[in-house]
Amino acid sequence: MTKELSHVVQNIKPSGIRKFFDIVSEIKDAISLGVGEPDFDTPWHIRDEGIYALEKGKTFYTSNSGLIELREEICKYQKRHHGICYNPLTEVIVTVGGSEAIDIGLRAMVNQGDEVIIPQPCYVSYEPCALLAGAKPVIIDLKQENEFRLTPEELENSITDKTKVLILAYPNNPTGAIMEREDLEKIAQIVKKHDIYVISDEIYSALTYKGKHVSIASLDGMQERTVLINGFSKSYAMTGWRLGYACGPEEIIKQMTKIHQFAIMCAPTTSQYAAVEALKHGDDDVKAMSGAYNQRRRFLLNAFKEMNLECFEPYGAFYVFPCIKEFGMTSVEFATRFLEEEKVAAVPGDAFGASGEGFLRISYAYSLDNLKIAMERLKNFINRLRSQ
Amino acid sequence: MTKELSHVVQNIKPSGIRKFFDIVSEIKDAISLGVGEPDFDTPWHIRDEGIYALEKGKTFYTSNSGLIELREEICKYQKRHHGICYNPLTEVIVTVGGSEAIDIGLRAMVNQGDEVIIPQPCYVSYEPCALLAGAKPVIIDLKQENEFRLTPEELENSITDKTKVLILAYPNNPTGAIMEREDLEKIAQIVKKHDIYVISDEIYSALTYKGKHVSIASLDGMQERTVLINGFSKSYAMTGWRLGYACGPEEIIKQMTKIHQFAIMCAPTTSQYAAVEALKHGDDDVKAMSGAYNQRRRFLLNAFKEMNLECFEPYGAFYVFPCIKEFGMTSVEFATRFLEEEKVAAVPGDAFGASGEGFLRISYAYSLDNLKIAMERLKNFINRLRSQ
Repeated sequence: MTKELSHVVQNIKPSGIRKFFDIVSEIKDAISLGVGEPDFDTPWHIRDEGIYALEKGKTFYTSNSGLIELREEICKYQKRHHGICYNPLTEVIVTVGGSEAIDIGLRAMVNQGDEVIIPQPCYVSYEPCALLAGAKPVIIDLKQENEFRLTPEELENSITDKTKVLILAYPNNPTGAIMEREDLEKIAQIVKKHDIYVISDEIYSALTYKGKHVSIASLDGMQERTVLINGFSKSYAMTGWRLGYACGPEEIIKQMTKIHQFAIMCAPTTSQYAAVEALKHGDDDVKAMSGAYNQRRRFLLNAFKEMNLECFEPYGAFYVFPCIKEFGMTSVEFATRFLEEEKVAAVPGDAFGASGEGFLRISYAYSLDNLKIAMERLKNFINRLRSQ
Repeated sequence: MTKELSHVVQNIKPSGIRKFFDIVSEIKDAISLGVGEPDFDTPWHIRDEGIYALEKGKTFYTSNSGLIELREEICKYQKRHHGICYNPLTEVIVTVGGSEAIDIGLRAMVNQGDEVIIPQPCYVSYEPCALLAGAKPVIIDLKQENEFRLTPEELENSITDKTKVLILAYPNNPTGAIMEREDLEKIAQIVKKHDIYVISDEIYSALTYKGKHVSIASLDGMQERTVLINGFSKSYAMTGWRLGYACGPEEIIKQMTKIHQFAIMCAPTTSQYAAVEALKHGDDDVKAMSGAYNQRRRFLLNAFKEMNLECFEPYGAFYVFPCIKEFGMTSVEFATRFLEEEKVAAVPGDAFGASGEGFLRISYAYSLDNLKIAMERLKNFINRLRSQ
């Protein structure tokens, strides 16, 4: 076979997280602080609703956009938590996790050669999905000194007349950074001035530890140019259910729905029924899990302080992003030696973009017991490095 | 907001089936023979395995490619039924239904401007997915006189030096046509001579009523150039579970997996556990359902004969595709009047491509009771038309 496969796809590198975990899987008894997924099982009453749907034989396709009950609950949720009003009939689509929403959102908006601004470090999918959609990714290297928030200057300097979309992802994976109302307002001004779209990936919106999450879509004049992405994976511990959604202007959701209709058909039915239950009666579960995450977060930050390891205080998601530049190694070298010598896996920061170099992503979606052992080992490791 | 959304996406028309069902939903008490989905609930032991997975808290991500047990069972299935050997580690990817496999298969193979040959009438996704991948769709109008099989001449006449992929979909939706070994062997010769790829959508492979399904991938020299797509929706009555797969050459599956990893992450976990059970112990269910379909198929063909309505004998899937040209109406006119006057919904053939004009897709994934009433009404309808 000689004919060449897609050049765009061939040139995309597989996820750096994945590469690192291939090494992890070869080390016996390693403690992993690596995976970006809650350690909790899905709350029982949500699973029970999924089970009930299966028992009742609800095993058929739903409408392309998703169950109308679910879209209605999504709208109520967005109203209740973020003060944004969407029409469940025309402004919501239920997707296969937030992932699919990112992919079809970009495919619906981008023409060949359009520029998509991606602040990094960030989740590994944005850049490949932009490339796959035919866009030119324009990377902004966020800075620890700004707590990895996007600044108005950074954004302004990246905009050209080809800019189509800004991808904003707060609370952030991998840094744990958040952006507050006053930060977002400055960004919104620039976005409106240059007439660009925003894809706001708010999958961690329920996991914030400093006031309530503010969505950029809720700011004046922003709803009409924002595709808000959210889902059930992180807040309700429902990763395996593969269920997310996008809300946005009718015309964009209409185009996204066309792609979804042909490429996916509909999101999994059992998951949709369970998600209705999650939105109706899951607020307390989210509160409980988020409380547990916060306790672990404070434990880790305290442990870093005690071992004198530099780390800005992250107020969202379930990641901390300590700086390891003092050790004069790349983050891959650091993470590899930490794994080999102390059997603890954390993801090298450069897996999330060049500006993640010199940092380590540590997930605290792990039990406090494991985190305690891991911090003991990290202390030993960096003490050894410092004494060498 | 003035900046334009994706031109490619905007120019794609929504599915014609969908358009027709918007009309159907307004007619009370209509009998629908329209939907392309089994009327059976998922067999209980398969649902039970999904329930068990939920009870056990198996609610986490699986590996990007899918559970290894599932990939192993898929390989055993392909070996057992079609005599093809795949490596579960490198030549299989579990997807969100067959739909996702078509989308990412095309995205992985096609470069801008490559030609993708699509024999029509066919499933509504191929042409939009090809367009979305940046390809130029080249349509072959299949003929009733050939029982809607693809002939070597038709294929040969459509190939240019830009041809990259042939999409082959037998047993076929909407015609019910199959292609037998000798048909496929002639096609394979041409495919090999011109060094093109095949995407073989075999989602209805278990539903054939004239000998066993033959996969083009099993023919000499074809496995290395074929992406075989199959899944659980049709054969196991598992549409809502959204689970399918692709098997193919390592290099293509590797590229598809990259897209899948970034755009989808993994197929739904509960569905994957249930699918293992389906493959292990579901052969008898498939036999039983396929027996029921065959009984209905024969009933319909007999009814058509009695009312003297032209229809070639289809040996696969769960569709018949009678010709309504004698009535001098478009298929949309015919279907609309049939719905309005007799309250029976069947899909106009042109929803599946221009060469479907003059035909009607009738699904027999409906109870014999309903089919009997529907055929009574069809008889009244065409008698009335003929007497006018």
